[in-house]
Amino acid sequence: VTTPIEFRSDNASGAAREILDALAAANAGSARPYGDDDWTGRLTDTIREVFEHDTATVFSVLSGTAANSLSLAALCPPWGAVLCHESAHVLRSECGATSMFSGGAVMKGLAGDGHRIDIASLAQAFEDTRWGDPHHSQPAVLSLTLPSDFGTVYTPSQVTSLAALAKTRGVRVHIDGARLANAIAALGCTPAELTWRAGADIVSLGATKNGVMNTDAIVCFDQAASDQLLYRVKRAGHVASKMRFQSAQLNAYLTDGLWLRLASHANRAMVRLASGLRDLGVEFVDQPEVNMLFARVDDAVADRMERGDLLFYRLGPGLIRLVTSFQTTDAEVDDALQRIATALTGN
Amino acid sequence: VTTPIEFRSDNASGAAREILDALAAANAGSARPYGDDDWTGRLTDTIREVFEHDTATVFSVLSGTAANSLSLAALCPPWGAVLCHESAHVLRSECGATSMFSGGAVMKGLAGDGHRIDIASLAQAFEDTRWGDPHHSQPAVLSLTLPSDFGTVYTPSQVTSLAALAKTRGVRVHIDGARLANAIAALGCTPAELTWRAGADIVSLGATKNGVMNTDAIVCFDQAASDQLLYRVKRAGHVASKMRFQSAQLNAYLTDGLWLRLASHANRAMVRLASGLRDLGVEFVDQPEVNMLFARVDDAVADRMERGDLLFYRLGPGLIRLVTSFQTTDAEVDDALQRIATALTGN
Amino acid sequence: VTTPIEFRSDNASGAAREILDALAAANAGSARPYGDDDWTGRLTDTIREVFEHDTATVFSVLSGTAANSLSLAALCPPWGAVLCHESAHVLRSECGATSMFSGGAVMKGLAGDGHRIDIASLAQAFEDTRWGDPHHSQPAVLSLTLPSDFGTVYTPSQVTSLAALAKTRGVRVHIDGARLANAIAALGCTPAELTWRAGADIVSLGATKNGVMNTDAIVCFDQAASDQLLYRVKRAGHVASKMRFQSAQLNAYLTDGLWLRLASHANRAMVRLASGLRDLGVEFVDQPEVNMLFARVDDAVADRMERGDLLFYRLGPGLIRLVTSFQTTDAEVDDALQRIATALTGN
Amino acid sequence: VTTPIEFRSDNASGAAREILDALAAANAGSARPYGDDDWTGRLTDTIREVFEHDTATVFSVLSGTAANSLSLAALCPPWGAVLCHESAHVLRSECGATSMFSGGAVMKGLAGDGHRIDIASLAQAFEDTRWGDPHHSQPAVLSLTLPSDFGTVYTPSQVTSLAALAKTRGVRVHIDGARLANAIAALGCTPAELTWRAGADIVSLGATKNGVMNTDAIVCFDQAASDQLLYRVKRAGHVASKMRFQSAQLNAYLTDGLWLRLASHANRAMVRLASGLRDLGVEFVDQPEVNMLFARVDDAVADRMERGDLLFYRLGPGLIRLVTSFQTTDAEVDDALQRIATALTGN
Repeated sequence: VTTPIEFRSDNASGAAREILDALAAANAGSARPYGDDDWTGRLTDTIREVFEHDTATVFSVLSGTAANSLSLAALCPPWGAVLCHESAHVLRSECGATSMFSGGAVMKGLAGDGHRIDIASLAQAFEDTRWGDPHHSQPAVLSLTLPSDFGTVYTPSQVTSLAALAKTRGVRVHIDGARLANAIAALGCTPAELTWRAGADIVSLGATKNGVMNTDAIVCFDQAASDQLLYRVKRAGHVASKMRFQSAQLNAYLTDGLWLRLASHANRAMVRLASGLRDLGVEFVDQPEVNMLFARVDDAVADRMERGDLLFYRLGPGLIRLVTSFQTTDAEVDDALQRIATALTGN
Repeated sequence: VTTPIEFRSDNASGAAREILDALAAANAGSARPYGDDDWTGRLTDTIREVFEHDTATVFSVLSGTAANSLSLAALCPPWGAVLCHESAHVLRSECGATSMFSGGAVMKGLAGDGHRIDIASLAQAFEDTRWGDPHHSQPAVLSLTLPSDFGTVYTPSQVTSLAALAKTRGVRVHIDGARLANAIAALGCTPAELTWRAGADIVSLGATKNGVMNTDAIVCFDQAASDQLLYRVKRAGHVASKMRFQSAQLNAYLTDGLWLRLASHANRAMVRLASGLRDLGVEFVDQPEVNMLFARVDDAVADRMERGDLLFYRLGPGLIRLVTSFQTTDAEVDDALQRIATALTGN
Repeated sequence: VTTPIEFRSDNASGAAREILDALAAANAGSARPYGDDDWTGRLTDTIREVFEHDTATVFSVLSGTAANSLSLAALCPPWGAVLCHESAHVLRSECGATSMFSGGAVMKGLAGDGHRIDIASLAQAFEDTRWGDPHHSQPAVLSLTLPSDFGTVYTPSQVTSLAALAKTRGVRVHIDGARLANAIAALGCTPAELTWRAGADIVSLGATKNGVMNTDAIVCFDQAASDQLLYRVKRAGHVASKMRFQSAQLNAYLTDGLWLRLASHANRAMVRLASGLRDLGVEFVDQPEVNMLFARVDDAVADRMERGDLLFYRLGPGLIRLVTSFQTTDAEVDDALQRIATALTGN
Repeated sequence: VTTPIEFRSDNASGAAREILDALAAANAGSARPYGDDDWTGRLTDTIREVFEHDTATVFSVLSGTAANSLSLAALCPPWGAVLCHESAHVLRSECGATSMFSGGAVMKGLAGDGHRIDIASLAQAFEDTRWGDPHHSQPAVLSLTLPSDFGTVYTPSQVTSLAALAKTRGVRVHIDGARLANAIAALGCTPAELTWRAGADIVSLGATKNGVMNTDAIVCFDQAASDQLLYRVKRAGHVASKMRFQSAQLNAYLTDGLWLRLASHANRAMVRLASGLRDLGVEFVDQPEVNMLFARVDDAVADRMERGDLLFYRLGPGLIRLVTSFQTTDAEVDDALQRIATALTGN
C-alpha cells in the first residue's frame, strides 16, 4: 500500500505551522472589528517595509479572484478594457468577476510565447485601438499574470518594458501574483524590483497558495485606487468582521521572509522533480520556472501514475500538470519519481 | 489597575476553542480545492440535518455583508426592490452592496415598532406599489433582520404572518441572521421553525459574531436561488480556494449544538447584566431579547464608565450599547456592574 | 358632443411646428453618423451661448430618465449616495436606473415642504453621515428636481444656498430639469442664473415635455463628467446613429428663445386655469408655480369632469392633477372652466 | 464642380418620405405618453403580422446598440457568455454595453469564414466549455450578426443549423439585424423564416440604417425575455415619453412592405455598383451579398476617389468600404463608376 503524493495544486496543501501559531496568538483577548485592530495596523507597516514603499496600502480579501477583480475594478473605468494574455486566469477562470465589479469593463486576450505578453503584441493592441472613440472599450489596465498559470515568469526587466509602454498611453499595470512569492524566489529579485519599481500600480499578493490558510490581499501603490478600494472591498463583502485573524496570517506570512522561504521550498522541490523527470525522458511543454510543470505523457502512462497513487491534474489527451508546494518533501519527490519510472515502463 | 471588560460587540470576541481545534484537524493532509473536499461535503449534510430540510444548500462566504447581498441578489431582479425595516443593516450599513450585486436593485425602508416590520406596514407598502408598472421598482424580496440591530426578535409566528403576506404578491423572504443563533436560543424554537417552516427562502447564517473565526454562510432553501449562487458566490470572490478551512469551522459550529450553546451563553450573560442594570435604575430603549442592550445614561456617566475600563459603544448623546458574547463570564458581568454602580454615583 | 381637452400631461402634447420644420430641413442630403455632423456641432455652440458658459458640453439622449441616470452616474461613484427630495422623480419613478448605471449607488430621500429640500434637511443629512466610513454609502450628489413633480420651483437663491452647502462636503449638484424651461420662464431668470451660476454641475434639459418630439439632453458644466459621458452615453445606447435629427430638434428648441416662449405659453395657460378654478372655489395642494396644478375635488366631481371630456390624472381619492402645455389654448381653458363649473354643481 | 456621392454608410442617409409623413400624421392631437397610445398598440399587431407570430412583442429603443445589449441582457445571466463571431459589432463596437446591462456577462469571439460562425466553430466552443463549473462564464446566448458588418449573410438553413446546435445546450439565439431588411430582401425569404422559424429567440430590427429617422426596435419571440424587457428598457431610459412618434415610424416602416422595398433598392444599387466595379477590374474582399462592398484599391486610387467627391470609408491601407442606401440612385451609381474609372487611370 502506497501513500498518495500531492501534485494537484499548491492550494491543495494546508496552512503552514507559523500561520496556525499566529491565529492562535491573535485569539487571545478581544479587539475592535473591521480592521481597527493592532494586527491590521501592523500589516500596513509590514507591507511598506517588505515592498520598500512608504505609502503602499493593503486590503485583505478572501481569494485571488477577489484580489484580482477588485484591483482591476479600481483601475479600470466601466468603459475600459483590461489587456491580458489570452491564457490569463483573470480572463479564463474568474467567471466574469472583473466585468461585474467594474460595471461592465471587458477583457482582451493578447498573444505571446511562453504565456507572456510580449512588447510587440502590446504595441499592436495599442495601434489597433481607436483611442477616444466611444464605440470602443478603451484599454485602461495591463494585467500581467506573474507567474502565468503555466509556470512561466516575467523578469523585472520585462515588466519594466511592458509597463513603460503601457504608461505612454495612460494604461495602468496590475500584477496577478497568485504565485508571486514563487516568482520572486525564482528570480532572486526583491519584491519592489518585480512590482512598483518595474511600474506596477497594484498587486494581487497570492498568499493562499503558499501556506496561508484563508486570506489573500491586494497591495496597492496608487493613492486614488487605494481610496476607491476602501469602499469597493467593503461593499464586496471582503471586509472580515474579525479582521485581526486575516491580518495576523498576512503578518506572519510576510515577516522574516517566511513567504519567500515557503516559496523557495516549493520551487526547489520542482527543480528536483523536473530533473528526475528529464532523466526519465519526460518531455515538458515549457521549462518550469517556479513550482509548476506541464508534461507530455501518454494517457496510458497517466492512468498508471494515477493507479500509483500520484495526485495530479490531467489537462487533456497526453498532457498533465504537476505542482509542488511548501509541504512537498524531498522524500515525496524521490518516491514519486520511482512511481513514475514504473508507470513509464508500463508495469 | 483594572482589566478592560468587553461589551463593544460580539465580533470583538475571538474564536471558540472548538473552532480552533477544527481548523487544526482540517490542516492534516491535503485536499482538493474550491469545495471539492470532505469537509464541504459534510457541511451540506450538517445543514440539512440541523435545519431539517432535505434539499437545503449552503455557501460559505467571508462576511455577513456578503451573505446578505449575494442572497438578495439571487432573489431580487435588477429592477426589483428589497423591502426591509428602515433600521435594517442591509439598508444602512452595507454601502450599497445589494444594489451592486443585483445590478441596480433598490431598498425600501418600512416603519415598525421595536425595529420590526409589522403586517400593516408591509400591507401598506404593497398597496402603494404600482405592480407591473415599469416606472417603479417592483417589490421582490422581504428582508427580515433577525434579531434586529437593536436586539429585538421576530417570533416564528410573526415571520410566518409576514412571509404569508409576502407570498401573496410573489415576494420572497430573506432572513439576515447576523445573530440568528441568539434569536433561536432566546425563542426556544428550532432552526426550521424560525426559517423555512415560517416561509423564509434564504438565510444569512451569522456565524462570525458567535464564535466562528472567519467565515459566514448562506443557507438556501430555494433551488433556483441555489443554482444562481453557485456562480454568484464564485464571481464575487467568495469561494475560498482552501475551502475545507471554511467548512470545517461551520461544521464544528453547527455540530452537537455548539452554536446554540455559545449563543445561550451570550444571552444569559445579557440577562445577568440587564438584571443588574435594572437594579441600578438604568433605563433601556427596548427590553433586551438577545445579547444586546441599549441604555440611556448621562454622558458624564458614560465618560466615567470608560475611565473604569468598560469597553462599549456610544451611539449619541445619552445612549450607549452593551453587547455580551460567548466569551463573557459571570465574573466579568458582576465586575462590570460594580464599576457601573460607581460611575452612576459620580465617584 | 364636446371635444376632449388635454390636461393629463405636457408629454401628451405633440411636437411644435418649429421642431417638425427643423426635422424636415435636416433631412436634406446626407451627413456623417454618430454626431460627426454640422447640426451636432452647432448644438454645442447653441448650448454655450444660451447658458453663457464657454466650455459646457451637451449630450442628446432619448428620455428624461436617461438624462437623469446617466448624469448622476457620471457624478456619483458606485459607493456613493444621491440625495434628493423624498418625492423626487429620480427616486420614485425611474425603476432604479441610477443604481444600475452607477454600478450600485443608492438614493436617499430628504424631507422638505413644497416638495423642495430645505437647508436644514440637507444639513441634517450631512450631520447624520459617517463620512469616510466604508460601511455607509457616501453622499456624492445633490439632485434637485426643478420644478418638482408637483409644480413647485427652487429660486436661483435657493439653489445657490443648497449648492454652497453641498460643496462644503464635496457633494456635486444635479438639476432634474424635466420642466426646466417652465421654471426659467416662471422665475424670470436666465438659464445660467438657475444652473451653473447657482452651483449646478450638470442639468437634465427636459426638452420633450415642452414641444420637442423625441429627444432630451444632458447639459454638462463639468469637464470630468463630460469626459465620462462620452463613453457612458454611447454604451447606454443613447448615441443616435443619425444624430443630426436629435441635434436639429434641440437647436430649433433653443434658438431664438423658442423653448422659453413655449414654456411661457404653458405657464400662462395655467395662470388662466388656476385663476378660473380659484373663482370656482377649487382648493389647491400647492399654489401652481409653473404649468402643473394639484387640486382637491370630490370624486363625484372628478367623475363628472371625466364625463365632460376633460382629460386629467386622478392621483387618489379627492386629488387630481391638471397640466397645461405649449399647445393649450385660451379657448380650451375657458371651455374647460365652464365644464368644471358644471361638474361642480352636480349637473 | 461635382456633387458628392454618398457611400460612407447607410446611416448617413436621411429618413424616407413615408417616415416623415407618418411623423406629421402622428402629431395631430394628443396621446397618452409612455406607450399607452394607439400607434404603439398597432405596432404590436404589425409585428405579429409581419413576423407571422401570435405572441411576439416589440420594444422601440433609440439605437442598434440599445437593441442588441438589452436583448442580450434579457437572455444572458450575469455569469453567462455571449458567443458571437470575432468580427461581431456587439463584440467590437459597442463599448461593453452588453457587459454593463447584463451585470457582467462576457463575450467570446468565434472564428469562421465570411464573417460567419460555422457549425464546427460553435461545436468546438461547446466542447471547450466546462459546463456547470463556476470558474467559467457559461455560454448562454449565440448572437448572429445578420448581415455581418462585412456584408455577408447567413441563410435560413444556416441559422437553423446553428440554432439547433445551440439549443442542445440550452443556449438562446439572438440576431443582430442592423441590416436585417437587406438580408431578407437579398435572401428572398420571409421574416419568419430567417428568424424564429429558424430558431431565433430575439431580434434587433435594425430600422435606422434603412430609412427610419430615429428609432430602432427589439422584436422578441420569448415570453420570459419579454417580461424582463418591460423593465430593462424603461430603466435604460429607452421608453420615449411621446412614444407614439417612435411607434408611428416603425408602423410606417413595416406596413405594406416599405422596409423590404427600401432594402431591395439599396441592394440593387449595390448590384449595379459591384457589377460596374468588376468591369473596372476592382477586387473585392467578399462578394457583396447585401448593400456593402469591401474593395481593395491602392491608396493613391482612393486618394483620387476622394478628390473626385466620392464619400466612403477607408479601413486601412488598400482597403475601402462602399455602402449603398435606400436613397442611392442609378444615376449616382453610374456617375460614381465614371469617377472611379478616372481615379483608377491615375488622372
